[in-house]
Amino acid sequence: MTKCKFCNKESYVKLKSPKIHLCKEHFIEYFENKVEKSIKKYNMLNKDEKILVSVSGGKDGHAAAWVLKKLGYNIELFHINLGIKGFSESSLKAVEELAKKLNVPLHIINLKDITGKTLEDIRGKKCSICGITKRYLMNKFGYEHGFDVIVTGHNLDDEVSFILNNILNWNIRYLAKHEPVLPAHDKFLKKVKIFFEIEEDLILKYAEAENIPFTTVKCRFAEKAITLKHREYFNELEKLRPNIKYQFLAGYMKNRRIFKCEEDENFEFRECEICGMTSAGRICSFCRVWKLYKNKNKSNSK
Amino acid sequence: MTKCKFCNKESYVKLKSPKIHLCKEHFIEYFENKVEKSIKKYNMLNKDEKILVSVSGGKDGHAAAWVLKKLGYNIELFHINLGIKGFSESSLKAVEELAKKLNVPLHIINLKDITGKTLEDIRGKKCSICGITKRYLMNKFGYEHGFDVIVTGHNLDDEVSFILNNILNWNIRYLAKHEPVLPAHDKFLKKVKIFFEIEEDLILKYAEAENIPFTTVKCRFAEKAITLKHREYFNELEKLRPNIKYQFLAGYMKNRRIFKCEEDENFEFRECEICGMTSAGRICSFCRVWKLYKNKNKSNSK
Ligand SMILES: [Zn+2]
Ligand SMILES: [Zn+2]
Ligand SMILES: [Zn+2]
Ligand SMILES: [Zn+2]
Repeated sequence: MTKCKFCNKESYVKLKSPKIHLCKEHFIEYFENKVEKSIKKYNMLNKDEKILVSVSGGKDGHAAAWVLKKLGYNIELFHINLGIKGFSESSLKAVEELAKKLNVPLHIINLKDITGKTLEDIRGKKCSICGITKRYLMNKFGYEHGFDVIVTGHNLDDEVSFILNNILNWNIRYLAKHEPVLPAHDKFLKKVKIFFEIEEDLILKYAEAENIPFTTVKCRFAEKAITLKHREYFNELEKLRPNIKYQFLAGYMKNRRIFKCEEDENFEFRECEICGMTSAGRICSFCRVWKLYKNKNKSNSK
Repeated sequence: MTKCKFCNKESYVKLKSPKIHLCKEHFIEYFENKVEKSIKKYNMLNKDEKILVSVSGGKDGHAAAWVLKKLGYNIELFHINLGIKGFSESSLKAVEELAKKLNVPLHIINLKDITGKTLEDIRGKKCSICGITKRYLMNKFGYEHGFDVIVTGHNLDDEVSFILNNILNWNIRYLAKHEPVLPAHDKFLKKVKIFFEIEEDLILKYAEAENIPFTTVKCRFAEKAITLKHREYFNELEKLRPNIKYQFLAGYMKNRRIFKCEEDENFEFRECEICGMTSAGRICSFCRVWKLYKNKNKSNSK
């Protein structure tokens, strides 16, 4: 039996750096300390803020809510029912279970109530539409209900895969803006990724150690092919150079100014003509993808 | 039998973009045209220049020499005997065969004659030392014998793997300087990669179609682990998005100015105190790794 570095109990997890074994209890302590360190390091959150945690039913958002609650932050949960058969039902069940266990308010929004449609109904790139939709509805809800900040469960694996994907496609603009804390501006709330520096594996281990309820049902629309390749690649690299994900992210944070060096910062935001939320163009991307202008002014549609 | 797009002969290769089948003869024509287009596009070479092609015995350098000779360029071959058991013997045999078939001069340099050692003898990172050594000796020979330009066989796969590796490690300086044509300066000759835009697979197909002699024996010191992962990754990506290697390279060429945006261009070159070739420091990296200062001034060594 391999033992915990700090006590006589059995090893629950082997960390990569430092290379030590931890029992379940010491791992939970380690994990929560690690998250708290990230929060302090990037000045992510404080305990006076009213925090809205986005929960999809999966382990990452659930673990984020769980650890924040344990650390004494003031959180409520936000969930969007996307109306995806199978997936949305099991997601809903998991978030309700989580809210009950954490004893925190859960706000649920049904996509269909707002757009008249579900993600099943819409044509086009569902993953991209879903992303726009979730970001928009979460922000709008938080903004209208007096929240200070939105927390999402994006982890280190998500971040490095996102960065790499944007480098492969040379989306310089996206690379300029990617950070663990997006400050509030106009009607956009502050957005925080508390697991920015934390590997997916560890989050799963934490969720299991704490018996956090979550669903493992995956959305059947997920366009995972290319993202999966990035993830596989990083996992392969980790075998040769443990901690390369974190080092790649740290290098990105240190060097990402190069992606800004030609940017004209004169970009102006305005209010969407349909919904009034902050938008880069005349009509925000949410109103655009859900064709909400059609409801207001038929003559503008084509 | 799948037929060639342009004649009735059997398909020899299926191109990815455009997606067409070509017979051996039409593929050879296509390949040579493609190389000539690269040469024109980047203003790589002209027919008055005295060109030294670096040949290691492998397919890439050999195909480079072969296609340049066929296109009517004025080439000679340069080979370094590194003294690596097994590998160096079969390399030497292949370059001699190539020179004979092409009927061009072949210049061979023995590492041991210059440094007193082979690559077997030296300690440290052999791959990195080998790279420094080959670049140095090739340049010095070309400079001292009145060549205008050095051509190497680096292909698209080498380039994208190199770029990705340097992004993973955030070696911004390396990324600023990477190009198909490095202009001459001081005692550095112009350096050209004629296969910069051409996938390794196609080069192999060309070498086989033309019966170019080359060795498939690999150097047993090659530190391939991480490079292999990059190559595997790109090959996996190609399956999902054909031509992504080329698009990544093209995007790099379009955007690489961002890696230069903070560089201070006041860097000064001087002459190496030992060998007199152009150097970034007091002693050039070649003289440093082979400890050539020891021969000149014992008191400076440690
Ligand atoms: Zn313990
Ligand atoms: Zn809108
Ligand atoms: Zn043909
Ligand atoms: Zn020197």
